[in-house]
Amino acid sequence: VAFDSIETPFGKINKALGGSGSYFSLAASQFCPTSLVGVVGSDFSDKYRAPLRKRNIDLSGLEQAKGKTFAWGGKYSFDLNNRDSLFTHLNVMADFQPKLQPHQRGIGFVFLGNMHPTIQLKTLSQIKKPKFVGLDTMNFWIEKAPKELKKILKLADIFVINDSEARELSKEHNLVKAAKKIIRMMETIYPRPSPHKRREAATLIIKRGEYGLLMFRSAFPSTSGRGVRGEGLSMQVFHLPGFPLENVTDPTGAGDSFAGGFMGYLAKTGDVSWNNLKRACAAGSVMASFDVEKLGTRRLQEIKDSDIKRRFAEFKNLTNF
Amino acid sequence: VAFDSIETPFGKINKALGGSGSYFSLAASQFCPTSLVGVVGSDFSDKYRAPLRKRNIDLSGLEQAKGKTFAWGGKYSFDLNNRDSLFTHLNVMADFQPKLQPHQRGIGFVFLGNMHPTIQLKTLSQIKKPKFVGLDTMNFWIEKAPKELKKILKLADIFVINDSEARELSKEHNLVKAAKKIIRMMETIYPRPSPHKRREAATLIIKRGEYGLLMFRSAFPSTSGRGVRGEGLSMQVFHLPGFPLENVTDPTGAGDSFAGGFMGYLAKTGDVSWNNLKRACAAGSVMASFDVEKLGTRRLQEIKDSDIKRRFAEFKNLTNF
Repeated sequence: VAFDSIETPFGKINKALGGSGSYFSLAASQFCPTSLVGVVGSDFSDKYRAPLRKRNIDLSGLEQAKGKTFAWGGKYSFDLNNRDSLFTHLNVMADFQPKLQPHQRGIGFVFLGNMHPTIQLKTLSQIKKPKFVGLDTMNFWIEKAPKELKKILKLADIFVINDSEARELSKEHNLVKAAKKIIRMMETIYPRPSPHKRREAATLIIKRGEYGLLMFRSAFPSTSGRGVRGEGLSMQVFHLPGFPLENVTDPTGAGDSFAGGFMGYLAKTGDVSWNNLKRACAAGSVMASFDVEKLGTRRLQEIKDSDIKRRFAEFKNLTNF
Repeated sequence: VAFDSIETPFGKINKALGGSGSYFSLAASQFCPTSLVGVVGSDFSDKYRAPLRKRNIDLSGLEQAKGKTFAWGGKYSFDLNNRDSLFTHLNVMADFQPKLQPHQRGIGFVFLGNMHPTIQLKTLSQIKKPKFVGLDTMNFWIEKAPKELKKILKLADIFVINDSEARELSKEHNLVKAAKKIIRMMETIYPRPSPHKRREAATLIIKRGEYGLLMFRSAFPSTSGRGVRGEGLSMQVFHLPGFPLENVTDPTGAGDSFAGGFMGYLAKTGDVSWNNLKRACAAGSVMASFDVEKLGTRRLQEIKDSDIKRRFAEFKNLTNF
C-alpha cells in the first residue's frame, strides 16, 4: 500500500492511494470478501482508507507503523509503453514483517504480492490450510534472491509474472520454452516443503502488457510430487488479449488489478478447474481494462457489477469463434 | 512469385520458391481451387512450378516473361523480430501488367497482393463481378502512392495490413482509433467508383506479428454508400493470438499464408458473415502457424487436411472460454 505520484501524457496525480495491495484489493473485492495485509505510515489518513472501506475491504491486517508510508513516483512515455521511476521511498515497508490476524489464518485463497520471497514465505506459513496460492515477483528478486524465490515457487499454485521476468528467470527467449522451464521449477518438490498442501497442477500466467496474457498448466500433474519431467512436458495453453481500448490513460496497477480480479473470481466460485481458470483470466483482464481507463485507482473505485458483466461478455465476443 | 534467399538463426535457403503469391496460393489451395496471377522470368524452371502444381494451383495466369524472376534476399535477427533485406531485384516484376485469362474474369473471391495500387486497380477491373475483394499493401505505397491507394481501398471488402502500416496510414498510434479512421477511408464513397459492387460492410484486419491480429468491422453499414460517419462509429472487434509455438524457424510469408488461408476458407464456405470471418481468421492463423515452422514454403508444401483440422481445434482451446 503506497502513495503513488503518476504522470502520463493524459494527466497527473500526486500522493494518491496506490501500491499493488490497493489495486489488487479494489479489484478482488468486486468478487469476494477481501482481506488486506500490509503496512502504512502514520501519514496514512482516513481519506486514504475511505475508498478501501467503501468496498468493504478488511483492513484489520493493515498495520500502521511509525514513520512515512511507502511512496512511489513514475512518469510514462508518450505511447505508455515505457515508464521511468522518479522515486521509490520504501519508508515503513523497509522493515515490514507481516503478522496475520487470527481470522486471516483460516483464509483459503491467498495472493502473495511482489515482495522479498522470504517475506512471502513468512506470510504463507501463517496460513493454516491454504487452498490456492497465487504468487507475484519482479526482476529484482529474480536477481537478488533466486534461492528464496525458488523455495516459494514450489508452494504456489499459480505464478503470475510478465514476459521479461519469465525470460530472465528461465533464460529462454521463446515463451513456450520459458513456461516449460518455470513450470518444472514449480513442480519439482522433494521433499515437498509444506506437507499440508497438495497441489493439483502448477499453473503459470505470463503477462504481455497490452498484448494480454498466456496461461500454461502442466497437462499431466505428477503423482509422485517429485522428479523433473522429460523434455516432452505437455502443457495446456490459454491466451487472452488485452481489451482493445480507444483511450488508455494510465497503465499503473493493471497487473495488480488483473491478479485481484483473477483471485477474486476463483475465490467466489471456489472452482480451480482449467476451464474456470480461463474464466478467472477473463475476470482479471476485465478489471485491468477498467483500471487503465483513468489515473491511479479512480476507475476501480467507481465501477459497478453491471460494468463488469458487460465487459466480460464483450471479452467473449472479442475472442470466441 | 519470387526466388527467396533466406537466412535465419536456424537455417538458410538459397533461391527457393517464394514471393507472396506462392505462400498465398499454397495456403489457399488447402481450402479451395486457387488461381494465381503473376509473372516469372525464363529462369523459372519446372522445378519451381512442381510444388504449386502438386496442390492443383491454376498457373495459366502465371506469365513467363523474358528476363529474370523477381529475387529477394533477407536475413533475420536472433529473436526473429527484425529482418534486413539483403537485396531486392524486381527484374521481370518491374514492367508487369497483369492480364487475366478469360476463365479468371468470372472469379468471385479475389485477393490483390501487395503491389502498386494502380496495378491492383487494373487487375480488379478485369474481374466481371467480384463477390469479395481482399487487399494487401505496404508502407512503400502508403508513402509513394497514397491517392491511388485510397482509390483501391474503397473497392476492397477487407483490407489486411500490419500494425505499423495501420499507424502510418491513419497517423494514429492507438490501434482502435487507427482502425476507425481506416474503415472510414474504406467506407466513404461518393460516387461509388464501381457500380456493380455493393459492399455489406468494410472490414479491416491489423496483423501484429507474433501477437496475432485484430479484426474490425463497421457495426452499422452505411445504407447510403456515402458520407463520413460521426466520431462515435461503432465497430465489431475480434482478436486472435499468434499460435504459441516452441520452435519458430522462419517468419517469411506468415502474413501471406494468413491471407491465403483466410480467403481460401471464405471461398470454400461462401459465407462472409461476421461469425464466419472469425473462423476464416482462425483458418488463416493456422496456415501462418504452420508456415513459420520450416524455412521458406517447405512446411506449407507438406501439411495435410488433418494437420489443419487439428490445429484449428487447438486454436479454439487456446482462445475460447
